[in-house]
This record gives sequence, C-alpha cells and structure tokens, in this order.
Amino acid sequence: MKKILGLLMSFTLLLSLVVPTSAASANPTKNQDPAADKNIHVQIVLFDGFDLLDVTAPYEVFAAAEMYTGGKVTVELVSAEGKRVVPSGLNGPSLEAQAALDPKRSGIIVVPGASGKPAGQSEDSIPNILRQAKNTGLNQLMKQALNNQEVTVATVCGGSLLLAMDGLLKDRYAVTNSIGMPALAALGVKTVEARVVEDGPRLVSGGGVTSGLDVALYLVERELGPQIANAIERLFEYERRGTVWKAEGSSPINFGTNAGNAREK
Amino acid sequence: MKKILGLLMSFTLLLSLVVPTSAASANPTKNQDPAADKNIHVQIVLFDGFDLLDVTAPYEVFAAAEMYTGGKVTVELVSAEGKRVVPSGLNGPSLEAQAALDPKRSGIIVVPGASGKPAGQSEDSIPNILRQAKNTGLNQLMKQALNNQEVTVATVCGGSLLLAMDGLLKDRYAVTNSIGMPALAALGVKTVEARVVEDGPRLVSGGGVTSGLDVALYLVERELGPQIANAIERLFEYERRGTVWKAEGSSPINFGTNAGNAREK
Repeated sequence: MKKILGLLMSFTLLLSLVVPTSAASANPTKNQDPAADKNIHVQIVLFDGFDLLDVTAPYEVFAAAEMYTGGKVTVELVSAEGKRVVPSGLNGPSLEAQAALDPKRSGIIVVPGASGKPAGQSEDSIPNILRQAKNTGLNQLMKQALNNQEVTVATVCGGSLLLAMDGLLKDRYAVTNSIGMPALAALGVKTVEARVVEDGPRLVSGGGVTSGLDVALYLVERELGPQIANAIERLFEYERRGTVWKAEGSSPINFGTNAGNAREK
Repeated sequence: MKKILGLLMSFTLLLSLVVPTSAASANPTKNQDPAADKNIHVQIVLFDGFDLLDVTAPYEVFAAAEMYTGGKVTVELVSAEGKRVVPSGLNGPSLEAQAALDPKRSGIIVVPGASGKPAGQSEDSIPNILRQAKNTGLNQLMKQALNNQEVTVATVCGGSLLLAMDGLLKDRYAVTNSIGMPALAALGVKTVEARVVEDGPRLVSGGGVTSGLDVALYLVERELGPQIANAIERLFEYERRGTVWKAEGSSPINFGTNAGNAREK
C-alpha cells in the first residue's frame, strides 16, 4: 500500500513537474489583441443517426479550448427539438442534447453528418438518415443561422449534404466526404476538393469524418489565435492537416488534371 | 417541392452510383485465409471522467469494421459496475455502458484515458480521475483480462497509466500521452516513444488522444486484414500514422539522441 502511495506521489509530482516545463518551452507570449477578451459559444447539433465522431472530435477540441482559455469558449450539444437523448447512427451510443439549437445566439454552430450504410434506401442508409433529419425542422433553424451575421456555420462530413438538401448551400463553396461529393455538386454546391473549405468567413466545411478535428482546430486558431490551437494539438497528438481553401489569391493553372479543385458550374 | 424531390433522387442515385465504382477501383481480392471466418468482440471500458474521444475514435473504427464485414466485429461500451450511464471528464457528455466488463470473454478490451486538467490535485485533474477509476475494481478485472490468453488489451492515452498505477504493466513496453511519459516510466513501465506500441501480441498501447484511431486501425488490420482497415481509412479520410513499435528486429544504434526510443531501466 505504501509502495502504491509512493508511486502515486511520484506520478502526481512528475505530472506537475512536466507540465510547467513543456509550457515554458513553448514560450507563450502575452496576447494583446482583442481576441484575448473574446467569448465564443459553440453549439453542436445532434439529430437521430448522427455520426458519433463527427460530433465528438470537434466537441473535444472546443472543450480543450475552454480548458486552455479558462472558460472563454463554451460548448454544448443541441438539437432542433430541445433537450433530449439522441441516438447516433448504426445503433451507436446516444448523447444528450442539453438545449434547443438557438440560431440567434452568436458563435459557432457545428452540423455533423450521419453514420450508416453509405448508399441505398434502407432505414439505416446515410441518404435516408439525412432525409429524416432534414424533415425535423433543423434546416429551418439552420437557414436562420446562415442569415445571422454573428454566426459561423461549420459542417463536418455529411453535414454539408444535409444543409444542401434544402438548397441552403446553393452556389456556396463546400466539401463533404469524398463519396458524397458528386451528390453535393448535384445539389448546386460549388464543390472543392480540400480537407477544409471556408466560404465567406461564416461557412466552413470539412471533408470526411476525421476532418472535424481540422475544422475545429482551424476555428480555434481563427477565433482565439495559434497558441491555443497549438496547445490542443500537442495534447491530442494531432497536427491540423491541409491548407484551408478560400476563394482568394491566385488560382492554379488548370492542366486538365483538376488541380483547380473548385468545380465551377 | 418537385425540384427538391428531383434533387433527392439525383443525390441518392449518385451516391448509389459512386459507391460501387470506388469499391471496384480498389479491386478487392477474395480473402481465403482463416481470418475471413473470425468473429471479434470489442469491449470499450467507461469510467467516470473518461476521455470522450479516447472512447469514440476506436468505437467508430470498430463499428465501421462491423459494417464492412457484415457483423464479424461487434463492439460495446462496458463498465466495471455493469450497465450504467457514465459521465465523461471536464463536465462532458455521458455515454451508457451496456454491460459489465467481462475479462473472460475473448476479443479486444480497450481502456481509455481520463479527460481533465493535465496536472494538480483538484477534483477534475487527470491524476485524481485515474486514481478514482483505479479504486472501482476496474483494475481487478483488467488483471484477469491481461491473464486471459484470448484477450488483447488495448490502451489509449492515459489508459496505460491507469493500468500501470496498479503495477499491471510492470516491465512491459508501452506508451501514453507525451505529458504522462515520465509518470509511466516511474510506474515501472518500459516506455517507448512511438504512436502505437505492441508488447507481446496481447498488449497494444497508444499515445495521445487521437492515437486511438491508429490503435484501432492497427488491430483491425491485424485481426481482419488490410482491406477492411483500408476501407475504414477511406471512409474516415484518415491514414494510420507511424510504425507500430515491437521488441523485434534490429535496434538502432544509440547516438545519445534517444533514437532507440525504448527506455530500458
């Protein structure tokens, strides 16, 4: 017992010793810009059949941002219907939405994709799950959010398809999971083959499931600066991938190899 | 309305068209080896204050393996106490454990880390959360699991610290989140600086939070072959990172720069 206690003591001591050291090595500078006093509220949308990782990856990035900023970021799970337990797709675990999605509240709203069979018309197919989600009134709320100048809408994976199914991303630049790209283009979206796409500053979309990490890390950097984003990357042992595509700067010459990545209609 | 229906039809049609095409391009070969008839059950352990992403990343990889193998893989959330709702750390969402952890059941058992303040003695510090988890009887069950020749124990992030706190990883090769490595070494573990470490074939550990993706993808490949793992990687838009370290093959010459990565005592 004494030995275990001894080990625990050294464990705790070591952990305490290690953290200040590595923080010091990063040599953080005092941030004097206005972002230092900014508060950001993040709403992450749940609907029946949502993809678990599309939700939990950004959730955990923003929760870590909350920890590293001493509460300047707050994050909650929401649904169109309000507080309720929402099952994820493929008979996965449920998560509880704590409140109703509020499109009038400033901040970030994250829309995940669905988890299910990638094609077909079965009950548990992604097209069917997204269609059901679309019919819950979620897109009426998302339309208000997209019109709110104080809100950034972020989608992960099939989240952009869900919005596009009601024409909410018509003529906007966006990405989705690679298997959904032709469908997204058919819905009138200017599809871009990039891991993260930013249209205006108020619409940011991510590609496949794990791009939720990159979308959230990009928004943390954009809103709170690189030091918070870097601290989260070190904690998660993940480095943000890919250049965030925006409709600015020079366009690459198109040699007929799709290097231009945006598909103008 | 007609227009929306038309769009939906083309969306579904396109999704259906796209999937067989990309599957065909991967040119999968019929697997004639015994793994084709193997069934794998995965138990993922929850305890109060668990890290959400440590759990959900492997969960979703194994759930996708279940989908792509037509049910040869099954995955469930478990706890030491049995069926109960278990809160994640940092006041995060709860997940429901569906059953009690069964150390006698063959397959894979995943032990996640905790989510909380990386140091200190507060209620919500990682050392404190792991100590509480240790005192639930979880490690008595994990000791049985480690002695069961039919079980592979996989840890993510602080999961290896949790086991090591009761001496269960004494003299074993393992990794944890980089901030916990000195503590893991102090607990008698031969720490290895790699993203994934395999000791024997029955103990596989992962580093920081997102290494749970790599641990699970490695086990899917090991148990079911590379075609299933590759399909999941494409779906998730994530490529497994790093060489899985094992105590075999040549060791690099140590130039005093820690290139040997394993720390023998």
